[in-house]
Amino acid sequence: MQVLNIADKTFRSRLFLGTGKFGTPQQMEEAVLASQSELVTVALKRVDLTTDSDTLLAHLQHPGVHLLPNTSGARNAREAVFAAQLAREALETNWLKLEIHPDPKYLLPDAIETLKATEELAKLGFVILPYIHADPVLCKQLENAGTAAVMPLGAPIGTNKGLRTFDFLEIIIEQSKVPVIIDAGIGAPSDAAKAMEMGADAVLVNTAIAVAGNPAKMANAFRLAVEAGREAYEAKLGAVLQHAQASSPLTSFLEL
Amino acid sequence: MQVLNIADKTFRSRLFLGTGKFGTPQQMEEAVLASQSELVTVALKRVDLTTDSDTLLAHLQHPGVHLLPNTSGARNAREAVFAAQLAREALETNWLKLEIHPDPKYLLPDAIETLKATEELAKLGFVILPYIHADPVLCKQLENAGTAAVMPLGAPIGTNKGLRTFDFLEIIIEQSKVPVIIDAGIGAPSDAAKAMEMGADAVLVNTAIAVAGNPAKMANAFRLAVEAGREAYEAKLGAVLQHAQASSPLTSFLEL
Amino acid sequence: MQVLNIADKTFRSRLFLGTGKFGTPQQMEEAVLASQSELVTVALKRVDLTTDSDTLLAHLQHPGVHLLPNTSGARNAREAVFAAQLAREALETNWLKLEIHPDPKYLLPDAIETLKATEELAKLGFVILPYIHADPVLCKQLENAGTAAVMPLGAPIGTNKGLRTFDFLEIIIEQSKVPVIIDAGIGAPSDAAKAMEMGADAVLVNTAIAVAGNPAKMANAFRLAVEAGREAYEAKLGAVLQHAQASSPLTSFLEL
Amino acid sequence: MQVLNIADKTFRSRLFLGTGKFGTPQQMEEAVLASQSELVTVALKRVDLTTDSDTLLAHLQHPGVHLLPNTSGARNAREAVFAAQLAREALETNWLKLEIHPDPKYLLPDAIETLKATEELAKLGFVILPYIHADPVLCKQLENAGTAAVMPLGAPIGTNKGLRTFDFLEIIIEQSKVPVIIDAGIGAPSDAAKAMEMGADAVLVNTAIAVAGNPAKMANAFRLAVEAGREAYEAKLGAVLQHAQASSPLTSFLEL
Repeated sequence: MQVLNIADKTFRSRLFLGTGKFGTPQQMEEAVLASQSELVTVALKRVDLTTDSDTLLAHLQHPGVHLLPNTSGARNAREAVFAAQLAREALETNWLKLEIHPDPKYLLPDAIETLKATEELAKLGFVILPYIHADPVLCKQLENAGTAAVMPLGAPIGTNKGLRTFDFLEIIIEQSKVPVIIDAGIGAPSDAAKAMEMGADAVLVNTAIAVAGNPAKMANAFRLAVEAGREAYEAKLGAVLQHAQASSPLTSFLEL
Repeated sequence: MQVLNIADKTFRSRLFLGTGKFGTPQQMEEAVLASQSELVTVALKRVDLTTDSDTLLAHLQHPGVHLLPNTSGARNAREAVFAAQLAREALETNWLKLEIHPDPKYLLPDAIETLKATEELAKLGFVILPYIHADPVLCKQLENAGTAAVMPLGAPIGTNKGLRTFDFLEIIIEQSKVPVIIDAGIGAPSDAAKAMEMGADAVLVNTAIAVAGNPAKMANAFRLAVEAGREAYEAKLGAVLQHAQASSPLTSFLEL
Repeated sequence: MQVLNIADKTFRSRLFLGTGKFGTPQQMEEAVLASQSELVTVALKRVDLTTDSDTLLAHLQHPGVHLLPNTSGARNAREAVFAAQLAREALETNWLKLEIHPDPKYLLPDAIETLKATEELAKLGFVILPYIHADPVLCKQLENAGTAAVMPLGAPIGTNKGLRTFDFLEIIIEQSKVPVIIDAGIGAPSDAAKAMEMGADAVLVNTAIAVAGNPAKMANAFRLAVEAGREAYEAKLGAVLQHAQASSPLTSFLEL
Repeated sequence: MQVLNIADKTFRSRLFLGTGKFGTPQQMEEAVLASQSELVTVALKRVDLTTDSDTLLAHLQHPGVHLLPNTSGARNAREAVFAAQLAREALETNWLKLEIHPDPKYLLPDAIETLKATEELAKLGFVILPYIHADPVLCKQLENAGTAAVMPLGAPIGTNKGLRTFDFLEIIIEQSKVPVIIDAGIGAPSDAAKAMEMGADAVLVNTAIAVAGNPAKMANAFRLAVEAGREAYEAKLGAVLQHAQASSPLTSFLEL
């Protein structure tokens, strides 16, 4: 499996993890380890910046696990830029998952404000990974604005519906010059495998692992699925055919 | 991952392989090894019974790899039973993949003749794995007739279309007392993962591996995907939701 | 819209109706009239054969509305043949919707017993319309046994899931020499339109109309949709394309 | 079927038409008449503003058919606003289909520039119907900017792929205070019916009619399908169920 390069970092794992919704910090930690993920996103608001020993962060101190603070909760570019700066200071990283979602019900991303924030944050030296709608035109605009990657959604966040934006992800992947990371909606390892098979560079998974019966085991399942999908992409899948073709020859052995 | 029991055998791998359509016997052998499959189906007609050293078979002589002769080419129960008996003698196994497909274009299975052949072959002591339409009623009839497993199709054979019979596979898996192996149509590792996630006991793959750009690498991808899907099934997936749910809390960190 | 011929009858409407699940006989009657259907199926068991004035039948006495008794409830060929004979005497028609479903949960049809019953009923002079799985091989066998049409299911009955068997219906329609009527699973007018667009000769709808908020209005909606789908089939749809094509020319008017 | 109000106009037909890609102006005219559409979009660039008798426009002079000039070809807000003003003067209507698509391959709309143009055009007194991605957040922003309706796409334009953005259209329809018109991608009457069933206020169709074997007949098919879908929406569809339910009672008539 080829390695993945984003900005200044190299990843052997193409599975990124979210840390919300887990029953306990221990469950979350076990899932992160089982996933072998090297990039884990944390909401700034869940990090207690006022004490030296934040519980969440303590559970994420593992070699090879990079933190990716996100701006979840920000409703516009101004709030997001402010949050980004707090995060950089607190977590000592200029990497940022940019999330701007004014709507509290579906948490869908705001194209206008996300582009504006990306332009500002790029000037401020951030490595930006913006969470966006699967909008191919917006992806190119973010690329021009200096984004390090794009993170189009597969389905409304938290629904486990899978790759409902498939037709648009295809176009994004075809056109993008920065890595494409499918974010939101991935509900099962088969969804993650499919995302990788179609040429996505990585996937970010959270809900599907956090709410599983056994989160660590599910994290391992996603690890395997992401590898499977990437292997398949590199090995090149055959075409989907309209007409059946036998894998065995048709001439009857009875005539031999 | 739990082991799988079919009749008198125990399998650690839940990926079964077909051996048709490969460019060379070497490619086939490499794919079988990379897949770590323990059950490999061969068409009797491709096995040359008249010489001691059949090429195909020579490439399948590996510890832990069981042969599953199939009756591909048989157009009715009579032909299938005859072929089964030839196969048992030639390959020294009473395991049989029963395939009866009168139509040379789509190679779809014949329910009537398959049930009839299963009844006869069960009396003759065969361990029968019949390739069938995803027909839940037929599955119960085959079970009553003494089949060792059922092998419903996911899509027309050779199309790589995936699990087009999903709604019926669900019912089959819910009702079956014998192992359910999804056969035909599985075109990508994500399809195999999905089959396992929904509770199938195993999958049989051929075309998707044989026609891949790199068959051995693709076989490895399927190995990982089948493990991923089974792990997910055992770890229990969360529900698909209609409404979005954030993985991060909504209350803005800005209000902290 | 071309007329449809089945056996000795000619139909201007390609929408057939079921009569179960309606709130009242009046609702059912209004729906039948709004649908402009010319063929309406009734379960023999809901027809009270012991009185002269059965309520259900009284509501179906309209010019141009033919009755199609069905054998719903039959668990095997013997029961179905017996029911068919009762129906022929009671309703004075040799037309029969053959339904054999041993499983009380999903009511899925039995291929083996349906073929057997078709063979017997054909000899007895019935015009047979069998409800079956979307199994292309079985369809040809029923054709050879003398069926007047085939009625493959779109999805498990009563689910409103639509055309989940699409890939197999395509093959059935391509191969069939008798009319193909899609039965079971059609949950919305768009499903009915799609069935007709793909070349089905007719559809049978029941649940989707009977359980609608306004059954008569929904029946009218299905009438329109079936006409729409048939018109589209006759007018020939364009291909589904992978790549976008503008309907307006690309050269900018600004350059004029 | 309820009438549809957009800004100052009332429509009895919920089918809007595009006029590109037809073989001849006569074919286009026949299709418009067969569709009974009351709103027809024309690209300004195809209208020859320098002569008194433009061919295209002559074929659209029918009572009840309103013209909706579009800005197809505009690559940014500036070009679109300029084109809008030309169109208003030339065609004597302040209605405008706003299309901004910088990418010449997929013609996907530009969220940023479309919002900007909408803000400007609203101030200039236009009745704006913007063609956009199925982005629920953008729809609310356009609403706030004074759009008269929103026109989210179903699939990449010209592909005939249908409602690939279904999950997002659902959210848009749920949240919108202005009419929602599904534009682009609708490839068959069944797609149009489905859009209406889910609660869209109207659909705009072009390619599927223009490239049909018989465009006028296909236009009639779409007319019927749109009516069918709206009727079904008003009559309220039943739920899609996981488990089958018989439309006929299960108790065997044989036991009567």
